Amino acid sequence: MPGQKLPDGKPIRVALLGCGTVGAEVVRLLTDQAADLTARVGAPVELAGIAVRKPNKHREVPAELLTTDAAGLVASDVDVVVEVIGGIEPARTLLLDALRAGKSVVTANKALLAEHSGALFEAADASGADLYFEAAVAGAIPLLRPLRESLAGDRITRVMGIVNGTTNYILSGMDATGAGYGEALEEASRLGYAEADPTADVDGFDAASKAAILASLAFHTRVTAADVHREGIAAVTAADVAAAKGLGRTVKLLAICERVTSASGEESVSARVHPAMIPRSHPLAGVGGAFNAVFVEADAAGEMMFYGKGAGGAPTASAVLGDLVAVARNRVVAGRGPRESAYAALPVRPMGQTPTRYHISLDVADKPGVLAQVAAVFADHGVSIAAVRQEVRVADASLVVVTHAATDAALRSTVDKIAGLPVVREVVSVMRVEGEES
Amino acid sequence: MPGQKLPDGKPIRVALLGCGTVGAEVVRLLTDQAADLTARVGAPVELAGIAVRKPNKHREVPAELLTTDAAGLVASDVDVVVEVIGGIEPARTLLLDALRAGKSVVTANKALLAEHSGALFEAADASGADLYFEAAVAGAIPLLRPLRESLAGDRITRVMGIVNGTTNYILSGMDATGAGYGEALEEASRLGYAEADPTADVDGFDAASKAAILASLAFHTRVTAADVHREGIAAVTAADVAAAKGLGRTVKLLAICERVTSASGEESVSARVHPAMIPRSHPLAGVGGAFNAVFVEADAAGEMMFYGKGAGGAPTASAVLGDLVAVARNRVVAGRGPRESAYAALPVRPMGQTPTRYHISLDVADKPGVLAQVAAVFADHGVSIAAVRQEVRVADASLVVVTHAATDAALRSTVDKIAGLPVVREVVSVMRVEGEES
Repeated sequence: MPGQKLPDGKPIRVALLGCGTVGAEVVRLLTDQAADLTARVGAPVELAGIAVRKPNKHREVPAELLTTDAAGLVASDVDVVVEVIGGIEPARTLLLDALRAGKSVVTANKALLAEHSGALFEAADASGADLYFEAAVAGAIPLLRPLRESLAGDRITRVMGIVNGTTNYILSGMDATGAGYGEALEEASRLGYAEADPTADVDGFDAASKAAILASLAFHTRVTAADVHREGIAAVTAADVAAAKGLGRTVKLLAICERVTSASGEESVSARVHPAMIPRSHPLAGVGGAFNAVFVEADAAGEMMFYGKGAGGAPTASAVLGDLVAVARNRVVAGRGPRESAYAALPVRPMGQTPTRYHISLDVADKPGVLAQVAAVFADHGVSIAAVRQEVRVADASLVVVTHAATDAALRSTVDKIAGLPVVREVVSVMRVEGEES
Repeated sequence: MPGQKLPDGKPIRVALLGCGTVGAEVVRLLTDQAADLTARVGAPVELAGIAVRKPNKHREVPAELLTTDAAGLVASDVDVVVEVIGGIEPARTLLLDALRAGKSVVTANKALLAEHSGALFEAADASGADLYFEAAVAGAIPLLRPLRESLAGDRITRVMGIVNGTTNYILSGMDATGAGYGEALEEASRLGYAEADPTADVDGFDAASKAAILASLAFHTRVTAADVHREGIAAVTAADVAAAKGLGRTVKLLAICERVTSASGEESVSARVHPAMIPRSHPLAGVGGAFNAVFVEADAAGEMMFYGKGAGGAPTASAVLGDLVAVARNRVVAGRGPRESAYAALPVRPMGQTPTRYHISLDVADKPGVLAQVAAVFADHGVSIAAVRQEVRVADASLVVVTHAATDAALRSTVDKIAGLPVVREVVSVMRVEGEES
C-alpha cells in the first residue's frame, strides 16, 4: 500500500460476542484488512476476545481469543462490543452492561432492537457511548445510515421494502415455476435459503422487526415489533401468484412504514408486513432471489431505492465492520455518532384504520347480472371499485376486481358477503395491492 | 408534534453562499422544518445571512438576510458555511477561508471538489472543521456517506453509475424514439432538461468531476477530474442506439471507477466516463429520464445499487440539509465527522492501459469469406472475439462483432484496418460494452 502512514494511536480493543457465520467473517475481515482499518480509523483495531458457547467448535479463529465468559469479556478492558449472537437474552443484558460502562456497541440484532431499542439508547445516552446497528436491516445495504443521517434534513413519508431474503426466494420461485407454497418452501430449505424452522421468516416476524427499526429511524419515533401488523406468506397460493401474473403483477412480502396525516392534521405512523401484488414495472418487482431492496420516499428528495444482498455472512459482516470503523473513529477523535432521535413520539395507527387496495379474484357463473350483483355488494360496504376484468371460460367465468383503498374490516365483510352469493362459485384469491396510484 | 422536547442549546448560525434553485430550496426547508431540525440537531439552526450577487433578484427570501459581501458573511460570527454557488472561484477562496477559521463547510460543488479536495481537506484537518458534500454527486441519493462510512470496513472494487441526468434524458429519448443526438438534445433543451450551453453535461465534464469524487472516496486515494478519461455523448448516433437495441442492449453514459491489481500485485485505480452499451437486463438499464443510479461492488458486501433523483432544487437541497444536520450536530456535541481518507495513494492507470470490451457493427458485402477476412484482422491485432452475428439483407449484409477486453489502441488499429477492407462498406458503430462478464 504505497504512501500509507500508519498512525501510532492507542489500539481500539474489540470484544466479539458470538462467532457463527457472521462472527467468523468479522474475524476474517478484521485480520485481512488490518492495515486498511488502522488507516481508516486512525488507530489499530484489536480483537480482544471472542465469546462463544462451545470453544472447541471454532477452529477457524485463534484459540487464545475464545472464551465462554461473555460477561467477563464485556467487563474487561475493551472499548467496543460487537454482538452477533442474536435473540433477546443474553444479548440484551450484555449490551446494556457494555453501554452503561461507556463502551460503544455494534450489533446486528434486529429482534433485540425492535423490542428494546428504547432501553439501549437510554443507556447509550447516559454514558455517551455509540450504538450502531446497520447490519440489523437489509444486511450489507447501507440503509440505516442514510435514513438516520443523509435524510436527516428531509421529511420521509414512506419506506417500503423487501427485507427478508428467505420469503423473497420462495415467492420468486412460486412466480417463476408456478409451484405452490409448500413445494417452493421445500426447495428453499433444500438449497439452504430457508432454516430448518422457517417460522421467523415465513410468518413475517423477521420482517416485522426490521419494519419496526425502519419506522423508528425514518419518522423519529419509537415503533416496536409489537406495533407492526404482521401477515406471513404461508397463505399465499399458486392461484394468488397466477392471478397476479395475469394482471402484470407479482407477489412480494413487503414491509411498509408510512407517515399518515389525518384530516384534522394529526400525524401518526403505520407499520405493516404482508404479501402484496405490485406491478411488474415497479422497481421492487425485479428484486429476485435472496436480494433485498428498500424504496424510500421523502418530501424533498423524492423517490430513492437501495438494493443489495440482505443476508449472508460476508454481507452482514461488511455492515458490522462499517459500523465498527465509525465507532472506533469516534473513540479516536473523542466524538460521538448520532443518538436516538425519537422526539416526534408519533402514535401508531392500528391496521384496522389503515386502508389498502385489494385484488379479488372470483370464479363465477357465466350468467347475466353477475357483475351487477357483485358490484352491488362492494357498493353496500362502501368499498370503491377501481378496475374490473371478466373472462368467460368453458362452463363458468372469472371475475377480477381491484378496489380503491379500503379498510380490512370493510373488505372482509364485503368478501364474506360475496362468497355467499349463489352466482359466486369460489373466492380464488384476495390480496393487497401496493406500488400503484390509488 | 406531540412529545417534542425543544433543546435550549445555543443556535448554530449558518451562512448560505448562493441562492439559485438549490439555495432557495435550502432556505425553504430550513424555515418549514425549523422545529424538526432543532430536535434532530439538538440546537436551533439559524440562517445568519445569504450571499448573492444581485439582492433585488431574490424576492422569495427575507431581504434582511441578503448581502453581496460573501467574504464578510463567511468571516462573521457563523458556525457553518453552506455553498451552492458552483464553479471554482470565488467558492474555493471562500471555503478555504471558512475551513481555516474552523467553520464547518457543506457544499454541493462537484467541480471544486474534483479539482481541489486535497487543499480543502487539509484546511479542514488543520482546524478540525467538517467538510461534507453529499449533494455534489447524484443529488439526493445518499451515496457518498455510504461509500465514506457504511462501507469503510469493506474493500470496494468497482463503482459504476449514471450520474448525469441531462445525458441520461437524451440517451433515453434516443432509445425510445430512434431520434438522432441533435434532435434529442433539442427536445431536452426545450423541456428544460439541458442548459442553454450543454457542454458540461454532454461532453462528460460533469460526470468526470463526479467520477473523480467517487473514486477518491471508494478507494481512499486522491483522484482529480484531470485523471478521469472522458468521452461525451455527442458522437452517439441513432445507428449506435439501434445496434444496441438489436442486441438486447441500451446505450448509457457511465462513470466507471475500478480498483485494478496488476499481475505483479500492484494496485492502481482507473476512472473513466464514456457511453457504453449495457444489457437491458442490467439494473442500470432501467434507469430512465433524469434519474441517477450507482452500482457499487465490494468484496464482502457484494453488489449494491443506489437509485434516485440526481438533480433539481429540492433533491439537491435534501442532501445539503442532511449534511447540515450532521455538521451542526457535530458542533453541538463538539464532535467531528470523518476526515479525508486518502492514505492508499494509489496511482491512476491511464486509459491506454485499461482494456474494455467493444461492440463493432459493420455493413459488409454479401460474399463468401467476409467473416474470415474480418476475423483475421482482429486476430492480427490480438483482439479476441467473444461473439459474432451476421445477417444477410437485400444487397449486402450486416456483421456485428463483440470483443473480449482490449485496449483502445489495439481496437483503434483493428477498426482502421477493417474499414479499409474492400468487402467492408461501412463501419456503422463502434462502442464500448459494459455490465456483462468478459
